[in-house]
Amino acid sequence: MGKFNIRFLPYDKSVEIDAETTLLKASINAGAHINAPCGGKGTCGKCLVRVKEGDYDTRFTPQLSEENKGKGFLLGCETRPRGDMVVEVPIESQIRPGEKIATGAKKEELHRMFMELAGEVRPRTKKICLKLAPPSIDDHVADLERLKRELSAAGFNTDHFYCGLPVLRTLGKILREEGWDVTVTLYQSGTALEMLDIESKEMCGIRYGAAVDIGTTSVVVYLVNLITGEIIDTAASYNAQARCGDDVISRIVYATEMDGLDELQRLVVDNINHLLTGIAKKHSIDINLIDKMIVAGNTTMTHLFYGINPESIRLEPYVPAVSLFPVIRAINLGINIQDTAPLYSFPNVASYVGGDIVAGVLTSRIYTKEETYLFIDVGTNGEVVLGNRDWMMTCACSAGPCFEGSGIKFGMRAMEGAIEKVDINPVTFEVNCGIIGNVKPIGICGSGMIDALAEMYLTGVIDQKGKFRDGLDTHRIRRGENGMEYVLAWRVESGIDKEITLTEVDIDNLIRAKGAIYAGFTTLLGEVGMTFNDIAKLYIAGGFGRYIDVERAITIGMLPDMPLDKFEFLGNTSVTGAYLVLLSDKLREEAEEIAKKMTYLELSVCRPFMDEYMSALFLPHTNIDSFPSVKRLLNEVGNVKL
Amino acid sequence: MGKFNIRFLPYDKSVEIDAETTLLKASINAGAHINAPCGGKGTCGKCLVRVKEGDYDTRFTPQLSEENKGKGFLLGCETRPRGDMVVEVPIESQIRPGEKIATGAKKEELHRMFMELAGEVRPRTKKICLKLAPPSIDDHVADLERLKRELSAAGFNTDHFYCGLPVLRTLGKILREEGWDVTVTLYQSGTALEMLDIESKEMCGIRYGAAVDIGTTSVVVYLVNLITGEIIDTAASYNAQARCGDDVISRIVYATEMDGLDELQRLVVDNINHLLTGIAKKHSIDINLIDKMIVAGNTTMTHLFYGINPESIRLEPYVPAVSLFPVIRAINLGINIQDTAPLYSFPNVASYVGGDIVAGVLTSRIYTKEETYLFIDVGTNGEVVLGNRDWMMTCACSAGPCFEGSGIKFGMRAMEGAIEKVDINPVTFEVNCGIIGNVKPIGICGSGMIDALAEMYLTGVIDQKGKFRDGLDTHRIRRGENGMEYVLAWRVESGIDKEITLTEVDIDNLIRAKGAIYAGFTTLLGEVGMTFNDIAKLYIAGGFGRYIDVERAITIGMLPDMPLDKFEFLGNTSVTGAYLVLLSDKLREEAEEIAKKMTYLELSVCRPFMDEYMSALFLPHTNIDSFPSVKRLLNEVGNVKL
Repeated sequence: MGKFNIRFLPYDKSVEIDAETTLLKASINAGAHINAPCGGKGTCGKCLVRVKEGDYDTRFTPQLSEENKGKGFLLGCETRPRGDMVVEVPIESQIRPGEKIATGAKKEELHRMFMELAGEVRPRTKKICLKLAPPSIDDHVADLERLKRELSAAGFNTDHFYCGLPVLRTLGKILREEGWDVTVTLYQSGTALEMLDIESKEMCGIRYGAAVDIGTTSVVVYLVNLITGEIIDTAASYNAQARCGDDVISRIVYATEMDGLDELQRLVVDNINHLLTGIAKKHSIDINLIDKMIVAGNTTMTHLFYGINPESIRLEPYVPAVSLFPVIRAINLGINIQDTAPLYSFPNVASYVGGDIVAGVLTSRIYTKEETYLFIDVGTNGEVVLGNRDWMMTCACSAGPCFEGSGIKFGMRAMEGAIEKVDINPVTFEVNCGIIGNVKPIGICGSGMIDALAEMYLTGVIDQKGKFRDGLDTHRIRRGENGMEYVLAWRVESGIDKEITLTEVDIDNLIRAKGAIYAGFTTLLGEVGMTFNDIAKLYIAGGFGRYIDVERAITIGMLPDMPLDKFEFLGNTSVTGAYLVLLSDKLREEAEEIAKKMTYLELSVCRPFMDEYMSALFLPHTNIDSFPSVKRLLNEVGNVKL
Repeated sequence: MGKFNIRFLPYDKSVEIDAETTLLKASINAGAHINAPCGGKGTCGKCLVRVKEGDYDTRFTPQLSEENKGKGFLLGCETRPRGDMVVEVPIESQIRPGEKIATGAKKEELHRMFMELAGEVRPRTKKICLKLAPPSIDDHVADLERLKRELSAAGFNTDHFYCGLPVLRTLGKILREEGWDVTVTLYQSGTALEMLDIESKEMCGIRYGAAVDIGTTSVVVYLVNLITGEIIDTAASYNAQARCGDDVISRIVYATEMDGLDELQRLVVDNINHLLTGIAKKHSIDINLIDKMIVAGNTTMTHLFYGINPESIRLEPYVPAVSLFPVIRAINLGINIQDTAPLYSFPNVASYVGGDIVAGVLTSRIYTKEETYLFIDVGTNGEVVLGNRDWMMTCACSAGPCFEGSGIKFGMRAMEGAIEKVDINPVTFEVNCGIIGNVKPIGICGSGMIDALAEMYLTGVIDQKGKFRDGLDTHRIRRGENGMEYVLAWRVESGIDKEITLTEVDIDNLIRAKGAIYAGFTTLLGEVGMTFNDIAKLYIAGGFGRYIDVERAITIGMLPDMPLDKFEFLGNTSVTGAYLVLLSDKLREEAEEIAKKMTYLELSVCRPFMDEYMSALFLPHTNIDSFPSVKRLLNEVGNVKL
């Protein structure tokens, strides 16, 4: 079949594709990033492109708005070449750098936290100095057995000793070159003892580890000094898998129905390698000195990382392939660190409560508390944990990625050009927007959405059901292509030559998302016969969690109406947990205990959840009395009669 | 650098080489086999070639006899091309097929032997049928944990359960495709339990294993039904490494000083793969159903097979890198069987007493006997074991490979054209030779050498020191290029257009070899204050062992002068031991006990051995009284006055 050359602007990246390949797929291959939340299934209508030159074949679907069609935009996932092409990716379809992904708390703070918790750095792998008696005619024990003998003398149980081929092959050389005075890296698990590496004596005080959080949206990496426990540096990027779908379900579909498992696996591995190589280089550290890696991610992310088919996660009865991943060598997944470095992943609890939540619970310490706590990780999903040192329950609310921009017409991530603050005048209904980077707006991010929803509700622009009220005297509210909408920025104000709006469909999506989260809280409480009054604290974790304005989130009924001092932000607890376990075998055992201890509630088949959810599909809630502070606010503004 | 094309006759195989590459090396690359016992070091003078066309550069060394020089022969290891060439490999330099390598006892006999010993087939890996409860919303345990749960229910300890990436990746698919009714292959070691494979229910009764003997000279493979224990078929070939040197020392030199470790590793792996594929195909067995392999070999062979540098084996204090090899996956060495199949090697005792001897002791059962036994493996080396159920001593005699043809002017292996029987008329000193295949002789093999030596001694052709007697009336004894020699075949009788002789140098080498073996016996006995009278039996193992005429070997003083019924041939005990351990975890543990139990005596620094050896450098021995039967024979012939 003939091949056509496709050049993408403004990236100026080219790729050869055949006539059956879509421009979206071509852009992935070319490394020219096009935002495609649905992963190319043709359902999100976001992968806009404009053909500058060349012949093509395209299909117009309802997902391509009349306005975008009028501007000459096509959908990348529906367009195929019929010759060489030059294709422009408009600003609103670009995946733009610029967002500062939260890498967690301050490095020093975390180190201090670890030291308080564990007291000492004692990872499951250790490096020890070993001085062997050189062989002689009278003592002709083989090299490996000589080493085992010395390990026994040093107090190690060598009954189940193992040493892999790469180490075996260098053993004799290194022992002799180093004059029988060496450093060995050991991995101890139960009675099993493995020698992972043998090096010169000098290397005893030098070793590094990596803690990794694989989020659906972003990947965060810590490079850690495994001797002192200090964090040398952190790095983060978007999860490159995002181009294959925004949420876990799209990724599973991409992996299974679109045969993309290998591609997804490679993408995230490249991601991690790239981040690690970057910081290692910056600190002049040989990446081969990284001899341990701990990963925390949700169940789907972990399966994809291991290259394990995640299909059963998505299908009833929602069973993952693996909960506790066996320790394997990182190199077997393509991670470019030391050849024998073990890779440990936090165990999953269920299909939709993964190792990231176990890491979160470990970080939050709620499993050690006498009082009862709530924990929520607000990421692409919303996982909730309720419990104390005696018991823990957990569920996943499937809030969906709309707070990250998906499913919202002008939704985007919190990067330059995103509306993050919304202030509506209760009299004129005019709006004042705060924009990240103080540039012309090109969309709205999660915190902007919560703000907008709260403001529109408090000022009476929308009613309790999220519908626009009739008869308000403002041209901001109008009937658009997708029904009623509120104009946040006029065309002249916007950075994309289009009006930026929030539609009734968007509002509906947001209410369903916030309703799911709130219903998650109340369902778990209901299961154990508790109320929010019984909760000592509600911990908010997750990258997006940091940007939530708690008062605004209470206003829309996403968070419960508790005193503000009962809320605490923990940041990225997934990577923090990975960091803790990297340094301490004891905390690793605690993590496995946590996973075993948590009782999982599958909400999709939970009758009480359905009821709680239906009740939460209002602003702030069907039962306004459970939100007294919102009631007060409504009274203060006075636009809405309760 | 320019490349030249070299074509080898009669193989008609070609290869491109540069001007720095020798014809010997070229022949290896071309797959045109040239016999080179010394591995190309230029010391054996056996890699004769004749240039038919083309320019070259060569060096004449004392190793190239005047006769061979006169015939236009050159040494392949000393000749390099200066243009394209056509090169003939003469018959005496070819490695010819035809020898029947002993693959051990009869298949049915071995199976019976195993059943008598172990009672039941119970290998360390097992296949079991497992029926899992399908997951439901109420029982949403992950696939792997579900399987572990079922294993626990079946009585397995899953506290230290492991499952590698390839199995993890197929787990969910197979469980669902097979309706949660599957076969799993388990490997149990201590408290560790690994799942090696998961298959359909139907596979529970189908599994195969391979037992392999890696000898310095030959490689033998058994394909075994792991359910019934029956041997399906056996196959054998020369060890392809032979082209890189005949004995372990040459191979070590080739591996280390000539950077040939990878090549040697690949050669033997290809060997094994080729043999296994051949018999698997013959019996229509999928090679991927072979899920276990046991290997027995001497210390050097095992190191080379694992790709581990064997250098320290050769250098004082003669310490191997490994005695007990960790169990690894066969695929990691390039063995083409089932991906996760474990590979176990018999442990070594010392640098020159390897796993093949441990396998031999296991087969011989001397470690279970009340009386004391001697065991010798006559292969390329000569390893001796003395002991009983309470203790065992062992040593290696470095007999060298001369019985396999190396270091003997017309020495060759026991293949077509080899003189295997020698009968000298005590009056005329004329000779009558028996030749393998009844063709014209091209050389002399080990049993022929022993025969020749015995006959020459008994008829008085040579004296007790192996020197030709003066004044015998025969033109068979003459001064040749390398000193005195005896003509075994005249030029017209021979198949190589040359006279075939046994020289004084050859005889010297043979006496040193037989002396080393005998001194091995007497040194071990001396260590424990015993004599041959204390020995219940002397077991002879090894491929060459089968062809030894015990009386003749006693005549030359290679074997002790004991009643003939005290000698027993065990055949290839290395592969037999591998077969036994393949089927029985219990016997495997016994093998490891044997290795631990054996006390190794390093003869190269053993003063008593030196004395014993010096005394044994006579025919049959300095002390003729220790060989009464030989004394009788001499008297019967009457040619030699004692």
